[in-house]
Amino acid sequence: MNNEQLFLGIDGGGTKCKARLEDANGKLLGEGLGGPANPVRGFDQTVNSIIVATELALADANLEASQIGNINAALGLAGVNLPSFMECMEKWQHPFAQMKVTTDLHIACLGAHNGQDGAVIIMGTGFNAGSIINNKHLEIGGHGFVLGDSGSGAKLGASSIRRAMEVLDGIAQHTSFIDAILKQLDCKDSVAVVEKTIHAKPNFYAQFAPLVLEYADKGDAVAKEQVNIAAEYTSRIARRLLADNPPRLSLIGGIASPIEKWLDQDIQDQLLAPLQPPEVGAILLARQHLSK
Amino acid sequence: MNNEQLFLGIDGGGTKCKARLEDANGKLLGEGLGGPANPVRGFDQTVNSIIVATELALADANLEASQIGNINAALGLAGVNLPSFMECMEKWQHPFAQMKVTTDLHIACLGAHNGQDGAVIIMGTGFNAGSIINNKHLEIGGHGFVLGDSGSGAKLGASSIRRAMEVLDGIAQHTSFIDAILKQLDCKDSVAVVEKTIHAKPNFYAQFAPLVLEYADKGDAVAKEQVNIAAEYTSRIARRLLADNPPRLSLIGGIASPIEKWLDQDIQDQLLAPLQPPEVGAILLARQHLSK
Repeated sequence: MNNEQLFLGIDGGGTKCKARLEDANGKLLGEGLGGPANPVRGFDQTVNSIIVATELALADANLEASQIGNINAALGLAGVNLPSFMECMEKWQHPFAQMKVTTDLHIACLGAHNGQDGAVIIMGTGFNAGSIINNKHLEIGGHGFVLGDSGSGAKLGASSIRRAMEVLDGIAQHTSFIDAILKQLDCKDSVAVVEKTIHAKPNFYAQFAPLVLEYADKGDAVAKEQVNIAAEYTSRIARRLLADNPPRLSLIGGIASPIEKWLDQDIQDQLLAPLQPPEVGAILLARQHLSK
Repeated sequence: MNNEQLFLGIDGGGTKCKARLEDANGKLLGEGLGGPANPVRGFDQTVNSIIVATELALADANLEASQIGNINAALGLAGVNLPSFMECMEKWQHPFAQMKVTTDLHIACLGAHNGQDGAVIIMGTGFNAGSIINNKHLEIGGHGFVLGDSGSGAKLGASSIRRAMEVLDGIAQHTSFIDAILKQLDCKDSVAVVEKTIHAKPNFYAQFAPLVLEYADKGDAVAKEQVNIAAEYTSRIARRLLADNPPRLSLIGGIASPIEKWLDQDIQDQLLAPLQPPEVGAILLARQHLSK
């Protein structure tokens, strides 16, 4: 029976939830993956995904599920920049020894710069950006699917499907990209698309982002237009972050790598690779939190 | 006790539901107004709004509520172009003598051209366009808030609030229009805006459309940009409709009148005033349906 202290880092977003388990000496013990963990999209689903990812990490470490009570956890979650959702998560009757909740942006920034000052832009299902400089936290850009997320995978997908609807309506140029979108949707007309997407959440639309980027790379005019809109927005966000002179700036998340070359050249020149993934940033925070 | 046949026309959309009651000779007896009636946004709310508007129309006509059983009703509703929502409405255990359900576009087109062939563009909370020519029905543009509605009041409002978020993030130009948007939102920062809009539906955003149009008229650069996006889309839709040579083309709905002057000049030149409102179009259909 092992009763030593365990450290867990959780990186939760609109599509998936990653868990990383380390021992007191910083040795990686196990990892796990759960479903969506954005409390704005549902509290029950979020805590369920966190538990699933944690149990998988414990199993991966050959530890019993009951060891969850020895875990010092730090959770970085989308959506908890909103006070009401932060409060909701903090009220959770969690099974850990200790739990610290913060934004996905915070742990991403800690990870990308190994706990040092710096700025990050997260481009995944959603979009978020910010920096930590001299203990000052800045968060911009991540205002959700309707009012923000202009550089997100979900927006890339949704704007491309919207464009496909315009082609079906006979008011926009047809390209092979449109056929590829409709094929992935498995729909032949606009009524079928609307029926299929009527309850679709951002992670549904984000599934189309790789296709948009693939066709933009091939030179498809419509796909390039969508990618350029996302890249132009992201470049503006990067300029705002760089105005505060962060020591480092990193681009992370599911569509970061393929979109990098579409950004303004002077922005590309200033990007540095993230040093550690967000879940490692979360563990840094869990250790910090315990030592307080 | 009056037991003669009554005819009811219902025009239901994302913000409100209008009822018009006529006798067998086409004499207006009464009118009523209910809440939102878009089945995609909720079946219970839709039928409730229809009943409220009908009861108000009966009261306005000095008729007893029990007379609802003598009503031949035709309902033109947003959303029922989708087969599943049409089916849902047709299964309603309605209180009328007879009920015919069709799209809001269909009754608008019948009304605008007094039952004759023609084309319409509806610009309200949502957006929809189409034509009836030689018994051929065309419907385009109305694919909902995420994948369509580019010329709608809801999109005008949402894109303006999104722009305000960019100003709060320090990545877009500030104008007095942004202050007006934030004042109407009663919010000072982006977190407050996101919290306020987290469950907002299209009719929430459509409330901002008059402000956008007002500031565009004043020459505000940001407001003009939003209105021009809606107008450019609407002009493309109008061109598609005109390609089929409809005898008449009308622009109707809550933002039709203020947006008209922003359309391409050649489109403006071809617009004709609607002859009757959609609820009169619905009554034409109710009479047609009964005489079959």
